[in-house]
Amino acid sequence: MERLQMKESFQIIPVGIIRKTDTAASIEIFDDYTDALLGLDGFSHLVVLYWFDQNDTTAKRRVLQVHPRKDPRNPLTGVFATHSPQRPNLIGLTVCRVKSIQGNSIEIEDIDALDGSPVIDLKCYIPGSIGEKDVHLPDWVRM
Amino acid sequence: MERLQMKESFQIIPVGIIRKTDTAASIEIFDDYTDALLGLDGFSHLVVLYWFDQNDTTAKRRVLQVHPRKDPRNPLTGVFATHSPQRPNLIGLTVCRVKSIQGNSIEIEDIDALDGSPVIDLKCYIPGSIGEKDVHLPDWVRM
Repeated sequence: MERLQMKESFQIIPVGIIRKTDTAASIEIFDDYTDALLGLDGFSHLVVLYWFDQNDTTAKRRVLQVHPRKDPRNPLTGVFATHSPQRPNLIGLTVCRVKSIQGNSIEIEDIDALDGSPVIDLKCYIPGSIGEKDVHLPDWVRM
Repeated sequence: MERLQMKESFQIIPVGIIRKTDTAASIEIFDDYTDALLGLDGFSHLVVLYWFDQNDTTAKRRVLQVHPRKDPRNPLTGVFATHSPQRPNLIGLTVCRVKSIQGNSIEIEDIDALDGSPVIDLKCYIPGSIGEKDVHLPDWVRM
């Protein structure tokens, strides 16, 4: 019943693109979204959400179980209990260390995503109670 | 140029719904996606991606800067440097502790989301180098 009342689908619009070579990785944000980067330089780490666009087919979106890390020795596991790039909604999630930000270009240490992947969202990384070493934050996070 | 070659938009389909009262919180996954939950009970924590459906308007999706936590004393900040519920793609992200899983229903300790929010993805939470206390994992994660 609830499901019938729920909107059938939502629209995701790319906001940038991942660029990756053997030696460098960056996130290039489109001009329309430059203003959304203000203050990002206060964070050491960044949550990157991207789209597994290579898998955006009806068949791959229907895959619900995989052997994690493509290793058949790993038990068959539901995709919601993995980070598999095959899943109903093709959202990839990773935390990256920021090296530098120049205009719309965010240089990152590395990213587990393919060159050319569409970026769909960025969020600041806040470790909360986790206490990872070497994380720094702007003052408003600590209030 | 790259942008012109990129697909204009991607489609997100709800896979469940968040249920929340004053005393309890759960994630109800739709029947079609039950198989995607296999093995989730091996994790203490879960990454929940949901949709800020109350803000799915053209105007709110155009908001690129906010005062974090709606506090005017916090500096104006780009939404990509926050977890604001107003952003170009209305993806909410949170890590929850799992209390129990019964069929399609995942009881969680608490969640910073509105009752009725559409769930768009779940992922296992793997702390990596972070070393949060009291996290447990299935064996394949450690390999």
